[in-house]
Amino acid sequence: MNRIDGREPDQVRELGFQLDIARHAHGSVLVSFGDTQVICSAMLEKGVPRWMMQQNVQGGWLTAEYSMLPYSTLQRKHRDISRGKLDGRSSEIQRLIGRSLRAVVDLKGLGQRTLWIDCDVLRADGGTRTASITGACVAVELAFQRFIAAGKMTESPMKKFASAVSAGIWEGQCLLDLNYHEDKDASVDCNYAMTEDLEMIEVQGSGEEATFTEDQMIEMLQLGKKGVSEIAARQHEAVDSFNPTANVEILTRLR
Amino acid sequence: MNRIDGREPDQVRELGFQLDIARHAHGSVLVSFGDTQVICSAMLEKGVPRWMMQQNVQGGWLTAEYSMLPYSTLQRKHRDISRGKLDGRSSEIQRLIGRSLRAVVDLKGLGQRTLWIDCDVLRADGGTRTASITGACVAVELAFQRFIAAGKMTESPMKKFASAVSAGIWEGQCLLDLNYHEDKDASVDCNYAMTEDLEMIEVQGSGEEATFTEDQMIEMLQLGKKGVSEIAARQHEAVDSFNPTANVEILTRLR
Amino acid sequence: MNRIDGREPDQVRELGFQLDIARHAHGSVLVSFGDTQVICSAMLEKGVPRWMMQQNVQGGWLTAEYSMLPYSTLQRKHRDISRGKLDGRSSEIQRLIGRSLRAVVDLKGLGQRTLWIDCDVLRADGGTRTASITGACVAVELAFQRFIAAGKMTESPMKKFASAVSAGIWEGQCLLDLNYHEDKDASVDCNYAMTEDLEMIEVQGSGEEATFTEDQMIEMLQLGKKGVSEIAARQHEAVDSFNPTANVEILTRLR
Amino acid sequence: MNRIDGREPDQVRELGFQLDIARHAHGSVLVSFGDTQVICSAMLEKGVPRWMMQQNVQGGWLTAEYSMLPYSTLQRKHRDISRGKLDGRSSEIQRLIGRSLRAVVDLKGLGQRTLWIDCDVLRADGGTRTASITGACVAVELAFQRFIAAGKMTESPMKKFASAVSAGIWEGQCLLDLNYHEDKDASVDCNYAMTEDLEMIEVQGSGEEATFTEDQMIEMLQLGKKGVSEIAARQHEAVDSFNPTANVEILTRLR
Amino acid sequence: MNRIDGREPDQVRELGFQLDIARHAHGSVLVSFGDTQVICSAMLEKGVPRWMMQQNVQGGWLTAEYSMLPYSTLQRKHRDISRGKLDGRSSEIQRLIGRSLRAVVDLKGLGQRTLWIDCDVLRADGGTRTASITGACVAVELAFQRFIAAGKMTESPMKKFASAVSAGIWEGQCLLDLNYHEDKDASVDCNYAMTEDLEMIEVQGSGEEATFTEDQMIEMLQLGKKGVSEIAARQHEAVDSFNPTANVEILTRLR
Amino acid sequence: MNRIDGREPDQVRELGFQLDIARHAHGSVLVSFGDTQVICSAMLEKGVPRWMMQQNVQGGWLTAEYSMLPYSTLQRKHRDISRGKLDGRSSEIQRLIGRSLRAVVDLKGLGQRTLWIDCDVLRADGGTRTASITGACVAVELAFQRFIAAGKMTESPMKKFASAVSAGIWEGQCLLDLNYHEDKDASVDCNYAMTEDLEMIEVQGSGEEATFTEDQMIEMLQLGKKGVSEIAARQHEAVDSFNPTANVEILTRLR
Repeated sequence: MNRIDGREPDQVRELGFQLDIARHAHGSVLVSFGDTQVICSAMLEKGVPRWMMQQNVQGGWLTAEYSMLPYSTLQRKHRDISRGKLDGRSSEIQRLIGRSLRAVVDLKGLGQRTLWIDCDVLRADGGTRTASITGACVAVELAFQRFIAAGKMTESPMKKFASAVSAGIWEGQCLLDLNYHEDKDASVDCNYAMTEDLEMIEVQGSGEEATFTEDQMIEMLQLGKKGVSEIAARQHEAVDSFNPTANVEILTRLR
Repeated sequence: MNRIDGREPDQVRELGFQLDIARHAHGSVLVSFGDTQVICSAMLEKGVPRWMMQQNVQGGWLTAEYSMLPYSTLQRKHRDISRGKLDGRSSEIQRLIGRSLRAVVDLKGLGQRTLWIDCDVLRADGGTRTASITGACVAVELAFQRFIAAGKMTESPMKKFASAVSAGIWEGQCLLDLNYHEDKDASVDCNYAMTEDLEMIEVQGSGEEATFTEDQMIEMLQLGKKGVSEIAARQHEAVDSFNPTANVEILTRLR
Repeated sequence: MNRIDGREPDQVRELGFQLDIARHAHGSVLVSFGDTQVICSAMLEKGVPRWMMQQNVQGGWLTAEYSMLPYSTLQRKHRDISRGKLDGRSSEIQRLIGRSLRAVVDLKGLGQRTLWIDCDVLRADGGTRTASITGACVAVELAFQRFIAAGKMTESPMKKFASAVSAGIWEGQCLLDLNYHEDKDASVDCNYAMTEDLEMIEVQGSGEEATFTEDQMIEMLQLGKKGVSEIAARQHEAVDSFNPTANVEILTRLR
Repeated sequence: MNRIDGREPDQVRELGFQLDIARHAHGSVLVSFGDTQVICSAMLEKGVPRWMMQQNVQGGWLTAEYSMLPYSTLQRKHRDISRGKLDGRSSEIQRLIGRSLRAVVDLKGLGQRTLWIDCDVLRADGGTRTASITGACVAVELAFQRFIAAGKMTESPMKKFASAVSAGIWEGQCLLDLNYHEDKDASVDCNYAMTEDLEMIEVQGSGEEATFTEDQMIEMLQLGKKGVSEIAARQHEAVDSFNPTANVEILTRLR
Repeated sequence: MNRIDGREPDQVRELGFQLDIARHAHGSVLVSFGDTQVICSAMLEKGVPRWMMQQNVQGGWLTAEYSMLPYSTLQRKHRDISRGKLDGRSSEIQRLIGRSLRAVVDLKGLGQRTLWIDCDVLRADGGTRTASITGACVAVELAFQRFIAAGKMTESPMKKFASAVSAGIWEGQCLLDLNYHEDKDASVDCNYAMTEDLEMIEVQGSGEEATFTEDQMIEMLQLGKKGVSEIAARQHEAVDSFNPTANVEILTRLR
Repeated sequence: MNRIDGREPDQVRELGFQLDIARHAHGSVLVSFGDTQVICSAMLEKGVPRWMMQQNVQGGWLTAEYSMLPYSTLQRKHRDISRGKLDGRSSEIQRLIGRSLRAVVDLKGLGQRTLWIDCDVLRADGGTRTASITGACVAVELAFQRFIAAGKMTESPMKKFASAVSAGIWEGQCLLDLNYHEDKDASVDCNYAMTEDLEMIEVQGSGEEATFTEDQMIEMLQLGKKGVSEIAARQHEAVDSFNPTANVEILTRLR
């Protein structure tokens, strides 16, 4: 059976990393998984949350916020502030992004700083949470490289790269990296966040109004591992092409 | 190595189901997993959310709310209404409870009704989300039995029972059903919601500031399956002991 | 004329006190007035509100929160956090509970601590505010006894016990301790919070869309005094049965 | 013992009623009890709350809102909207005002209209809630008279006048109509809302961190009755001086 | 063509300044522009906003709040707190009032104090924002005079008086100081805040669903200058009639 | 005197229009004024606000929302939803954008639709409100062209193009199109929204803690007219380069 967009079942969508999209951020990227596009930004601020000071925890903190821009969906999505409360799904996703990145960033290496990750979806076509984690990792590493170039860090607190991808069951078949049309009709939807050497960070499998077997779970996991290994390679290519001294305005401010 | 409370690594805590704890609810239970206690309630209301009517979806809807009572933790926890917004963790958990129950309840069998599930934690000692799913399933089935006894339903819309349990890695060892002390120090925390015949509904594995391997993931999954099969048996015992015509006040109102 | 539930006009409903219902609280009780059930908890925290520090007031503070659990009523009640604001009636009741307990607790005896009282209605059948005051007093005294047992207080700051009961006019007759069916149709509803020696703390009489005479007011007051004297006796029985050293976990933490 | 402002213990402060203070309202008055000043307004709107329509209740509804203007107190008071939530005390008072007026207004006589009462404190010197009830009654009656003059009502739905006054115990002595300095130090504070023929509508007695006896309660009640009878006479004088056809703009709009 | 109320095109409405309307405020006035009436108050508090301390800015701060009382409009206006958020128009107006007064008050002369301006519309008949600025200036100057009289300031930090007036285009004609009926149908609405010597502070011209030419803009500006020069003269008359030592209560508290 | 970035006093910054930046929107553009970049989107939805239906107003409605992305500023800006309320400045700006576009769009030509404009600042370097108006006009026209291409409109409801630019006084000199460094230190800041034939839509001049003369006002206006005439030409070039049938996905959905 063929996928609508002609991909093989185990094929990820075309990936893109447009670096430094938000030029006031310490690090930023517009990440694309096919038609899904997310602006990911990383900014370091002095200071840590109060609970860390109260509990006398050393090092820094990392936190993430996620939002869908109103025009990212085919029907305009109302802003959270108009509805007066954070969307439950957004809250869940931003917690996932934060946990995923905290697993690969050495918080002690941040010093007494808070690293803010922001992920704003510019176009939603399935997999916005996995694209966000993937892009956030790149944005964070760009920020670290700028801090090193500015003499404010000696080495990157990024222990390994993290990336993420989805897999699901659609018309009985396990597929990698679902787009919106596949995701909408999938009986099961899994998301994997892993390190570049394929250790698990977060595994979430969910059968909305359906269930799945252990065998299916393992088959999807193999797809996820294949996807992550390819995505991680593309993250490294993107980061390797980055010149941390090019955006002089930021660099000067950091020094 | 022994666990603090003397359990074997693959042993669930003592389970308890105190039926009809909230006697104005259609179905309710105080579920205990060791020292963790959660009040779970199920109430059916006429009507469905507006989006169902707009999209012309048949049948009913099921939604869940989760909250920790202020005195459920050793340090008093401020109420959400005092903070002015729903706690992010609570939001994530109530979405999980809702998805888990929607996987086993036939929404068409609800008629044009909304089934409200409420889970309020009376005492928190680890595993409140898995206890909530487990108790919610019992509360929902009790409600269905009352609707049948009152002649308002002909058969239970519950297709299979759902229950949930956690597993984790603590000092390098895979353990089933973590309590608070274990959970706090665990490097990995997994939650499994499954049907009584051990199909997966929700699988969530999370390495907060840590990672785990595929082998560990599969070992924890086996613990989860063992736990769920025992818990499901206890759910059935509890439900079998229920007399749906005993609480006359509710029954009369339903007729 | 007979009451629906067969009680005499001056008879209180059956009272119950299930001690230590919330085992993480310093003191707690599930209080019952007939079918009305309220979880009452008392927890002491270090520190006092900012206004006390600013005004240099010595001693501690006592504050109360009241909420109806969603399944406490026959029609499910939406949570305050879903509506985005505290219910006006809840706000009024929690202020009443706080004032009533502050009248009998020696705030100086608390030290620089805040005493949090929480009252969550598990089942509502009329008189939830009077049951809350009555239960809160017991929960607070249990907490004080634990602090004494742990060597953190030398004597109980509870000067006298406080309890409360309602009276009303229903079909022209003065009745003590109205249940929901009586309360709904009563032309006048009074609530009395008194000390165990029958001094007044709070008196609230309200004729919703009706009025009452001074004579009726005095007749209802006599009912209230009879009710409080019986309830106070039952509070003492409950407290006398309490073993402050039994819940070892709390005691150990306090020491 | 003399009072600071030279009044006898049973003497109310100087009363004032400045009619039609808010000339866009259907009825309004600036009521003064000594230095306490409250703007009271009454406006009728077509339509009733949804719950009345759902429960098929005939007639109209009456609701009240109360607020302290930021400059009504010696220390500027922050607006509720800046704090993001309604002040608990304001919530309690506006519920009291609403209940008090509903006891004397024939809701059926309103037709399918909602009567909005607004009380905004311009200067606070004790007794703002009793001044609000007293002024609200006058504002409402002025609105009714305009509706009659405009041919939109045939008779006033006001069955009797309602007014209110406080009494308290200050340095052991029962005093009528406490001002701020007396109220601040009073051990007991009572508020009485009564009809002009001295039937009780609302009785609230509160011993903040103190208690009081039945005898004191009855002594304060006698003061309250004396106060209300004087205040009611002044309400009638004010209303009698009103010309409902004078404010042509409102009258024309009503016709 | 004649205006509805018989005024010339370049004529302002009748102005009124009722001083000390809110007698607990440091300075206050009820300002009238024809039927538009606004309560304006000025209160000084110790302390400055946190951002000033963080940025080490010397002197004080001045901020304004604006609100329409519910009964200021012919249709009752819901309070912001009932809607849960500040009205967008109110937010815009209060920012304008704040900027206008900061242009004429020497913030350094305030010392480490915050000057709170409150403007509450009692009756709205067009031009509430310009009336607010005009009244706020008077209220602030009254407060300064009281601080001088109390020995807490040596000279008024008011550098010049500020006032404001509107102009607009109505049926093709430029008119000064629009009332509600004119404003509603005007194709262009301009607001001018100026100093008493006719320097511009704020100029806002807005063609709601319409446009205007440079010539029209300049013609309206000339009207605005004429209006402000007359209004400024009336402000001075009002302030000159003020006796800063008359309200003894405030003066005593300031000393 | 030279400007920091080498521009002449009457020179606008380099303009850029990246069309279709948000490919799910009906029309969108990333507009640049030098380093200031704003994502502008236009989406049409069926239906109009309730007040239009109640007042029986024909045609459609147009409304705008404005937000600064957290990474648009050098110090990360907290999201409104984290602060729980809409920023006052954002509220003011989005009202300005809405009014400016309503002046040039024929609302009747929209049919019973609401046109949502969203402006999200990607990088802030001064002039974000004028860039937003300029970009919003382009985004709206692109949306109209797609509706025409899809056969859903017969002609564009855009009567004329609207654009905006700032001018200000910096070190005594009038400058066009201030960047952030100039804006920060400017004594006066004016914003002009005009039609392409230089009629005024909105004129806002503001002297934050300063004033300005009529002559300066007129000099800045001439700069504004020069700026707008250049910007309008660039808007037309951008729109002329647009192929409304290129984004097939949107076009297909519209048909």
